[in-house]
Amino acid sequence: MRYRKVPDETVRRLPLYLRGLRFFSEQSPDHVSSKILAEFLGINPWQVRKDLSYFGEMGTPGVGYKVKTLTNQNQRILRLDSVHNAVLVGVGNLGSAVLAYQGFRTYGIEIVVAYDSSPAKIGSKINGVEVKDISEMWQLNELDIDLGIISVPGGAAQSIADELISAGIKGILNLAPDYIRVPKKIKVISIDIAMDFARLPYYIPAS
Amino acid sequence: MRYRKVPDETVRRLPLYLRGLRFFSEQSPDHVSSKILAEFLGINPWQVRKDLSYFGEMGTPGVGYKVKTLTNQNQRILRLDSVHNAVLVGVGNLGSAVLAYQGFRTYGIEIVVAYDSSPAKIGSKINGVEVKDISEMWQLNELDIDLGIISVPGGAAQSIADELISAGIKGILNLAPDYIRVPKKIKVISIDIAMDFARLPYYIPAS
Repeated sequence: MRYRKVPDETVRRLPLYLRGLRFFSEQSPDHVSSKILAEFLGINPWQVRKDLSYFGEMGTPGVGYKVKTLTNQNQRILRLDSVHNAVLVGVGNLGSAVLAYQGFRTYGIEIVVAYDSSPAKIGSKINGVEVKDISEMWQLNELDIDLGIISVPGGAAQSIADELISAGIKGILNLAPDYIRVPKKIKVISIDIAMDFARLPYYIPAS
Repeated sequence: MRYRKVPDETVRRLPLYLRGLRFFSEQSPDHVSSKILAEFLGINPWQVRKDLSYFGEMGTPGVGYKVKTLTNQNQRILRLDSVHNAVLVGVGNLGSAVLAYQGFRTYGIEIVVAYDSSPAKIGSKINGVEVKDISEMWQLNELDIDLGIISVPGGAAQSIADELISAGIKGILNLAPDYIRVPKKIKVISIDIAMDFARLPYYIPAS
């Protein structure tokens, strides 16, 4: 089944819905209303209804959406119904935190190998993932990996991105505080904790 | 000077502009065009012009925007023209990465104290920040701190948020994979690395 194109802003919220839907499926109701889902996720009910309209399935008035059906559709749209292998580059504090975090697995994403330049880290295992020498990153070509996580210090991200792309990586999660340039066919999602934090004072009344 | 209300989507991009403007001020041109700024930041020029229209100052056609003026206005709108003190709770891998990261200072945000429950960490200093016993968080009341960072494991964020709020914190950066409920006057910005990562496969063509 194909779905019509979903706007980026909706795609941004899809994993949030997935988390909410999983929560409700554990609580075991068959149906959930847009109102309850919205309240749980802290967004507007009309936004939920609009977003979910891209799924093809409408909720039943007074009853809501089928939790199980909606979960499956959400996973299919996000292409999370199959496992994706990922590589992580840069095993400092942030990289180690990412490796230790189990959250990716619940979305079908598996970090299978990590790279670092520090001799103290090369050869070690963190959370079951082997840390290899960054000079051997070209070997990625031989593995079935399409996602990369960049958690190197600022200034080093562009060259790592270039290497990942030439090794066949198609999507990059950039956790370094650098803007990176990539070919059009490559998708980059950047998280800069400082930039998100810098938005907070805007919302805080002067005391 | 007061500015008209800026939409959340624009506020989200303001720190990005600030980073771009600082880059250009280091390169020392007096003016920058929306086109060059847009290219550097990887967004549309029309989006840049629309966003910057909230600043009150318009660019000069054919010349562009004054880098210095725009930087100052951006900082004033974001309320980053004064220093904000912050507290961090949870000094695991992620919390340590945040403490080690210098990026906050460039936005005028200073982490002045950290809390953890682990006896091995209490009393230590990370990047000059003292780690205190989490049971003493009520003492925050006596300090001039309005921002909090939550970097505790999943499941623990809500109770930490409650404590921070009762100690006078007005804005929270939530790095834990939990949705937290707060009173309306409190602003929360949540970053869940796994949820951002889960959006990547959507953009990747099936191989």
